[in-house]
Amino acid sequence: MSLIEERWQLLADVKKELAERDWFPGTSGNLAIKVDSEPLSFLVTASGKDKRKVTSEDFLLVDSDGLAVGETNLRPSAETLLHVEVYNKTNAGCSLHVHTVDNNVISELYGDQGEITFKGQEIIKAFGLWEEDAEFRIPIIPNYAHIPTLAEAFSEYVNEDAGAVLIRNHGITVWGRDALEAKKYLEACEFLFSYHLKLLSYQTLLVKN
Amino acid sequence: MSLIEERWQLLADVKKELAERDWFPGTSGNLAIKVDSEPLSFLVTASGKDKRKVTSEDFLLVDSDGLAVGETNLRPSAETLLHVEVYNKTNAGCSLHVHTVDNNVISELYGDQGEITFKGQEIIKAFGLWEEDAEFRIPIIPNYAHIPTLAEAFSEYVNEDAGAVLIRNHGITVWGRDALEAKKYLEACEFLFSYHLKLLSYQTLLVKN
Amino acid sequence: MSLIEERWQLLADVKKELAERDWFPGTSGNLAIKVDSEPLSFLVTASGKDKRKVTSEDFLLVDSDGLAVGETNLRPSAETLLHVEVYNKTNAGCSLHVHTVDNNVISELYGDQGEITFKGQEIIKAFGLWEEDAEFRIPIIPNYAHIPTLAEAFSEYVNEDAGAVLIRNHGITVWGRDALEAKKYLEACEFLFSYHLKLLSYQTLLVKN
Amino acid sequence: MSLIEERWQLLADVKKELAERDWFPGTSGNLAIKVDSEPLSFLVTASGKDKRKVTSEDFLLVDSDGLAVGETNLRPSAETLLHVEVYNKTNAGCSLHVHTVDNNVISELYGDQGEITFKGQEIIKAFGLWEEDAEFRIPIIPNYAHIPTLAEAFSEYVNEDAGAVLIRNHGITVWGRDALEAKKYLEACEFLFSYHLKLLSYQTLLVKN
Repeated sequence: MSLIEERWQLLADVKKELAERDWFPGTSGNLAIKVDSEPLSFLVTASGKDKRKVTSEDFLLVDSDGLAVGETNLRPSAETLLHVEVYNKTNAGCSLHVHTVDNNVISELYGDQGEITFKGQEIIKAFGLWEEDAEFRIPIIPNYAHIPTLAEAFSEYVNEDAGAVLIRNHGITVWGRDALEAKKYLEACEFLFSYHLKLLSYQTLLVKN
Repeated sequence: MSLIEERWQLLADVKKELAERDWFPGTSGNLAIKVDSEPLSFLVTASGKDKRKVTSEDFLLVDSDGLAVGETNLRPSAETLLHVEVYNKTNAGCSLHVHTVDNNVISELYGDQGEITFKGQEIIKAFGLWEEDAEFRIPIIPNYAHIPTLAEAFSEYVNEDAGAVLIRNHGITVWGRDALEAKKYLEACEFLFSYHLKLLSYQTLLVKN
Repeated sequence: MSLIEERWQLLADVKKELAERDWFPGTSGNLAIKVDSEPLSFLVTASGKDKRKVTSEDFLLVDSDGLAVGETNLRPSAETLLHVEVYNKTNAGCSLHVHTVDNNVISELYGDQGEITFKGQEIIKAFGLWEEDAEFRIPIIPNYAHIPTLAEAFSEYVNEDAGAVLIRNHGITVWGRDALEAKKYLEACEFLFSYHLKLLSYQTLLVKN
Repeated sequence: MSLIEERWQLLADVKKELAERDWFPGTSGNLAIKVDSEPLSFLVTASGKDKRKVTSEDFLLVDSDGLAVGETNLRPSAETLLHVEVYNKTNAGCSLHVHTVDNNVISELYGDQGEITFKGQEIIKAFGLWEEDAEFRIPIIPNYAHIPTLAEAFSEYVNEDAGAVLIRNHGITVWGRDALEAKKYLEACEFLFSYHLKLLSYQTLLVKN
């Protein structure tokens, strides 16, 4: 199996798993995995596909500008520029972007603050934070319709090999050194969002009694 | 594979996927896909079937009046007249009707207003709306027990090749140029309903503190 | 395939489907399907089994007293006496008992009233009620630990060939003329419970603003 | 099939089932099954694996100190010491630790009280409690980052062959005489948590009207 075939399979596995959770509503979401570093090339989801299906046109290879490598009828996902930022600025190997109800609600509730911070929760160990008082901060950026502007706002928070950024009323982008780490970050973020929202509803009620 | 077999398979795939989400509670819901335009014929779900099963009696062919084409023991779904409106008035290729808890709650909360409007949410791009301030409006019609009356009320909002109408305390009907677009509209609507309901519960609480 | 084998397979299909929805938490729940009327015999789930597994010991045949027919090491489900009431008093062919979070919450919220009534909801057509102002009433009985007492309280509401009874802080028992109808009743009840609970939370909030 | 192979398969089945419920977010969670008593050995999940995958490196054999038996590149789960307490102090055969949103919310809401008690709920029969007024108490311990300290706090509540302990803002550990009983305890606990949280939200609202 060639390198590109191996990476294709890894990304297809991630896509299948996220599709089973129904994390690609309305053909939303996009995924990428690095193939080569010098020069940079990565596989990214083709635009407009039903991500619950498995086909030979699910992904295409793009370069460091997010442009297709070689002849193809496929268009890279509209948000490929965000993945470009990840691979140009860090040593990440995989990046995932999904829309979920809970990440959208969190992004709106905390959007004016520009971030949400989690602490005192066991699962933040998934981010490599093992100290008892460790904090994990997720920035929230505005959802600029102009993708280069969105990519620029996103880029400001892309400084490490693994991380997460919320886009307000839109979704989350996470990245990690490899597919497993990117998926681990994503699952841990979604767990924290769901936990936070559920706890919030009871705390508000309890405070008032 | 004949045209009708191909369309059958496409509709069976959609049915399977919606069944996996449990969107056909109590044998509810009905699906249709256009086969021919001149004269109009389309496949529609047979009445009273368990939509989690896959059988050769899941669908039957009907004409522009919603009547079975050829000899059959099957009865078309009771709400076939709504699908008739879609194919007679537009170039849609597929139409889907499902009951979910969230589309029912939305239809009741906003029923008196006769519509619900979404804006400022990334996923409305699924409706082909790419501008930052775009709005997507879903009309809500009363749930007339008399199906021809219901179809008439529904027909008022069937003017484009893709769209969505809520029926109060009943469910949603969406349609699109093909099965993928209809499904995309449906998923995007359900995402917006779930998002809106969840956010609403926190906004109300937050406003009160 | 013998009659008993055919019924076994029908009940196994229902069990598999309900298991996929996770409606048998902690080995709870029990299912039955009639095999013969004269004398009465029906298959019922064996006690204490993991209902997500498929084995040749999932069900056993019992008589009109709920006692095992023939030699067996299997014990019928502790609540077999409720199924006995269904088959002795009606022409039902299948009866299902499951614990869900929502049916338990409904049973507690409306337990003191002894019933919950649904109307103005499309899905009550699943109960064969097609009029616009039709009502569907589900009685709620106390959860007597003594099963014969529970069966007696339950029996009071077993008068038709299809129906549903809630047991407070315990679960629901539904029955129908065949497996499909019993399942249809069950799904429609659960849909109504979930819908009612979700709407209730918003109505309460809205009233207060 | 050897004893170790048989136990491996049992634990793999449990892992698969819990993975289908998405109870291992971010590679969290760990599972163990006893193989031998004299001297004690048990299989435990290897650290950092994706628990939705099935591989020959999912589990490894450890001794009564939680140390790997024989040569291996695998590291036992970081929380193996908790499983050590279970097998050293009781006759349990299987122990399961998972993070869910609901067990985390319960652990935080009732953490200051140090426990949560359930009664008047049918499903507590899953814990072998059949009396009408039976109570099931689940202790809640602080989430010490230092695992030996956590294991010591946990050990205080490990006195019977089946039981459950919540770790605040972390998750739950349950154990039972065999895999089926451990899973039954786990499912019953999660059902009680979800039921309690949902009912609580309505009771609070109802009280205020």
